[in-house]
Amino acid sequence: MLNYITPEMVVQAAALVKKGKVYALGEELTSDVPRVITPARIGIQVIQENDGYDRVAAKSGEFDPKRQQGAASFTFMHNHTGSHLDTLGHIYRENALYNNMPPPKALGTVQGDAASVIQMVGRGVLLDVAGYKGNDPLPLDYWITVEDLQNTAKAQNVEIRKGDIILVRTGWRKTWGEPDDAGRLDAAHTKWHRPQPGVGPDCLKFLNEMEIVAIGSDNAAVEWGFPVKPDYNRKAFGFLGLPLHVDFIWNRGAYIMEILNLDDLAKDRAYEFFFALGPLLLKGGIGVPINPIAIL
Amino acid sequence: MLNYITPEMVVQAAALVKKGKVYALGEELTSDVPRVITPARIGIQVIQENDGYDRVAAKSGEFDPKRQQGAASFTFMHNHTGSHLDTLGHIYRENALYNNMPPPKALGTVQGDAASVIQMVGRGVLLDVAGYKGNDPLPLDYWITVEDLQNTAKAQNVEIRKGDIILVRTGWRKTWGEPDDAGRLDAAHTKWHRPQPGVGPDCLKFLNEMEIVAIGSDNAAVEWGFPVKPDYNRKAFGFLGLPLHVDFIWNRGAYIMEILNLDDLAKDRAYEFFFALGPLLLKGGIGVPINPIAIL
Amino acid sequence: MLNYITPEMVVQAAALVKKGKVYALGEELTSDVPRVITPARIGIQVIQENDGYDRVAAKSGEFDPKRQQGAASFTFMHNHTGSHLDTLGHIYRENALYNNMPPPKALGTVQGDAASVIQMVGRGVLLDVAGYKGNDPLPLDYWITVEDLQNTAKAQNVEIRKGDIILVRTGWRKTWGEPDDAGRLDAAHTKWHRPQPGVGPDCLKFLNEMEIVAIGSDNAAVEWGFPVKPDYNRKAFGFLGLPLHVDFIWNRGAYIMEILNLDDLAKDRAYEFFFALGPLLLKGGIGVPINPIAIL
Amino acid sequence: MLNYITPEMVVQAAALVKKGKVYALGEELTSDVPRVITPARIGIQVIQENDGYDRVAAKSGEFDPKRQQGAASFTFMHNHTGSHLDTLGHIYRENALYNNMPPPKALGTVQGDAASVIQMVGRGVLLDVAGYKGNDPLPLDYWITVEDLQNTAKAQNVEIRKGDIILVRTGWRKTWGEPDDAGRLDAAHTKWHRPQPGVGPDCLKFLNEMEIVAIGSDNAAVEWGFPVKPDYNRKAFGFLGLPLHVDFIWNRGAYIMEILNLDDLAKDRAYEFFFALGPLLLKGGIGVPINPIAIL
Repeated sequence: MLNYITPEMVVQAAALVKKGKVYALGEELTSDVPRVITPARIGIQVIQENDGYDRVAAKSGEFDPKRQQGAASFTFMHNHTGSHLDTLGHIYRENALYNNMPPPKALGTVQGDAASVIQMVGRGVLLDVAGYKGNDPLPLDYWITVEDLQNTAKAQNVEIRKGDIILVRTGWRKTWGEPDDAGRLDAAHTKWHRPQPGVGPDCLKFLNEMEIVAIGSDNAAVEWGFPVKPDYNRKAFGFLGLPLHVDFIWNRGAYIMEILNLDDLAKDRAYEFFFALGPLLLKGGIGVPINPIAIL
Repeated sequence: MLNYITPEMVVQAAALVKKGKVYALGEELTSDVPRVITPARIGIQVIQENDGYDRVAAKSGEFDPKRQQGAASFTFMHNHTGSHLDTLGHIYRENALYNNMPPPKALGTVQGDAASVIQMVGRGVLLDVAGYKGNDPLPLDYWITVEDLQNTAKAQNVEIRKGDIILVRTGWRKTWGEPDDAGRLDAAHTKWHRPQPGVGPDCLKFLNEMEIVAIGSDNAAVEWGFPVKPDYNRKAFGFLGLPLHVDFIWNRGAYIMEILNLDDLAKDRAYEFFFALGPLLLKGGIGVPINPIAIL
Repeated sequence: MLNYITPEMVVQAAALVKKGKVYALGEELTSDVPRVITPARIGIQVIQENDGYDRVAAKSGEFDPKRQQGAASFTFMHNHTGSHLDTLGHIYRENALYNNMPPPKALGTVQGDAASVIQMVGRGVLLDVAGYKGNDPLPLDYWITVEDLQNTAKAQNVEIRKGDIILVRTGWRKTWGEPDDAGRLDAAHTKWHRPQPGVGPDCLKFLNEMEIVAIGSDNAAVEWGFPVKPDYNRKAFGFLGLPLHVDFIWNRGAYIMEILNLDDLAKDRAYEFFFALGPLLLKGGIGVPINPIAIL
Repeated sequence: MLNYITPEMVVQAAALVKKGKVYALGEELTSDVPRVITPARIGIQVIQENDGYDRVAAKSGEFDPKRQQGAASFTFMHNHTGSHLDTLGHIYRENALYNNMPPPKALGTVQGDAASVIQMVGRGVLLDVAGYKGNDPLPLDYWITVEDLQNTAKAQNVEIRKGDIILVRTGWRKTWGEPDDAGRLDAAHTKWHRPQPGVGPDCLKFLNEMEIVAIGSDNAAVEWGFPVKPDYNRKAFGFLGLPLHVDFIWNRGAYIMEILNLDDLAKDRAYEFFFALGPLLLKGGIGVPINPIAIL
């Protein structure tokens, strides 16, 4: 439903650029990048191709450091690690994505993948709920209500408009690097993986009415109730699932962005801005690491 | 030298957004993505994590298709394939990058990598030299002169300004998919790998004077003389190398973007636009695949 | 210390081949292969290169299924997943491996890696401790004592000899696939990750005196006390570490093989055999997935 | 057709072990490992997980080098690089493998993959044709005839028997590292990629009659006529293809091993030996890198 953003809305959003200040909302991508650690989601591996020396030897075995050197690299990454976008292929039921599109295939996915997103440009709004509540980060398992969203907007003196890209700040990202209770490095990042504060399902009606095309946050899943408990049995649209994920991705064809870096925006009280994202056009990519840009 | 673009210039660039039309300049990333095929640069491999079925079985062996399904993916990619940006770590000499920064290391690179780019936002200008010359693509091995750049700008009625991000269109990308002389699929993409048209070294003085912070093109290396011939011996700043690469990356700390998709911009005669790029912040990434956004 | 196995010992080991029956001791390598699930150790990803169709089209767009088709594949794997061998580079102290060899480097490792192993051929002995104790698998956290090893050998009527390759069976591998307490598929494989039975440190003196060149098991770390508890503080040779790992790898230059499939050998009471392993010669590989062969 | 090797034949093969000397026939696996360089077949990338330091810090930021250090690694590899085995899934027609098995699938391959090979143990015979002909390596494009095979065996005083694993030495592997004509390092390995000497199709009848279960060589494709010329149109069993590949893999269900290191065997005139291979059991792997062992 990105087409809800009309050309006029893009022009209005661009008019928000008054200071010329640019913010990058992506995390640095390393082997220990913030992510939901599962049996599959490893950190991002960047591999140097080689050191550049051998490639410029004039003759075998003769290296002249005064000649040009060069370097290159490879990357292996799970596509749902670090700051990333969930595509429409991420959540579905009975083998049908949003709008009855066919599900992802191991080869030959043609709809609902990262390559289908193309671009996301529009008006971005930050709702710094952690700042508004004076609790940064928000408490464990905190349910962000629709009133929280609306009151934060009011306190920030910013209006939520139809077709916005909403970014909700929980402050949770700072828990990633915290040591364990004994003060040791915690490779499992236990504190981050506790029940995270997030957007509660009572917000969905409002977000739907406002035709919010994408929602992002600095936590792992945007929504409340994550990580899911072993006895989780909440249903959404008749099937078990995190309700914001089901509503945004499967029901409405809207996008979710997770593990964003919203701290600099919050620090500058930058609540309304031009938002621009060109995700990598990964054919068959179900998620895609991103570095969205906010400009004001 | 991205800091040459001042906040005022960002504001002026954003004012170019008048129609609200958005262009994605990245190629789709597939296993056969356009690239310089070398012994190391393979296509981009997107791998489905699994089919989503097993993850939602209530009990071992019992799958209920009415429950939520999900998918996820991995990517393995060489960082100089498809539409990509060359970082400052790509070209150097005597173990020193631009500004005497230390060279990339296998582990622990802290300067000159993709994570150091952060963002690139400013005024973009398309110089459709192929269109101006009425030769689309430009001929084999065509040397684009500084007069070509200036005359194209004049014909397009667009001014090149200090601190611009310049995109030069050669039309060469359409040769990627061409069959071989016998009409067969050409996995080696021989026609693309012939001596490409590109920006000649006589342009460097002008680009330098104009403080061009980044240059991009729809060919493999932006510049003329690529692929290099076996007996290549041109020097730049005292060392063997492609002169535009050496001047931009090593001498000036400016960026190069290769294998962009500039066809839609050219078709719409969109010669001046707001340019926004948030590259993946790959720590240690020497190149980085990109999907820049042009808005006007 | 593989050179402890003399040519004479290889000849004697080969003389054990009397039935001509061959056993493969490696697990199948899949995305859910048994392993210690850590933030980095994902399952093994096998990626099809493509489906073979396009590569054999006579002309672009024309496919003739009667012509040859072909397929090829890629693999991404953590080197310590599934059945694997720990090389000498895996455990060290003060930047020195066994025999004061230099530690692994990101590029340019020349000693103590998988390529240095070359081959491991000799007399293999299975000690089916789980079978001997009549407890299959052995209980949670069970400490296998030196008497257990010796009594198992006696009960099996097999002698442990100098320079043997010893394989100790705990039966633990069957816990990998067990559902969680609610009967659901357990992607985290909780039951496998409980404190595993393993070879206790009191066995080290005996294994050392017998010049055991390699030890393997069907659990995650061969030795008792794994996964380590948060308050682990056992020292070995003056430094914190799992003692069997430190003694075998760092002190003696002997090898460890983990997560082997020993069930078929045990079922056939095949306690003494010719053991042959040619590990992949991964230059810089710190671990290496293996499929050793037992023949009798 | 590995089951052609009976238990009795395994026992007889093991009886060849008289000196106790072991040879590893795999090449070292590096980023510049010998291979057929195609747009997809890159060298083998071994990636260090990290340097071991941080994982053992007692507290964040405090590292004690006297404590245990450790290392681990990842590997990304095309499965047809370096010394490797072609599985039955590699060559097929009309969507049917050998014995009408279904073709490889992107997910869920269950037949004809590397995991299906399990083990290959039997009598190995080296035919050092390069040595016999006194031409090492054999000349460009040399067709090894059935008489060459038989005369080599006779000169070596070794008998070819039913069910053997035959290794044919061409000497071609030494061309991999040769500089280009100007004496420079040749990243494209041009000399290796010239038309290679190999086993001619006239040998197939003999190899078939002898029930040869596997054939290997030190060149890229075992057989004559590789790399194929642009106008290649030889048919085998009614379809276009390299005849030895089609006959061994598709017609007979036999295996092919490529890019082996046979030099040490040849140097020692080790012509008859016990052959043992446990390939990685890659589920869905169409090829698999190997390090076979020869013992005599």
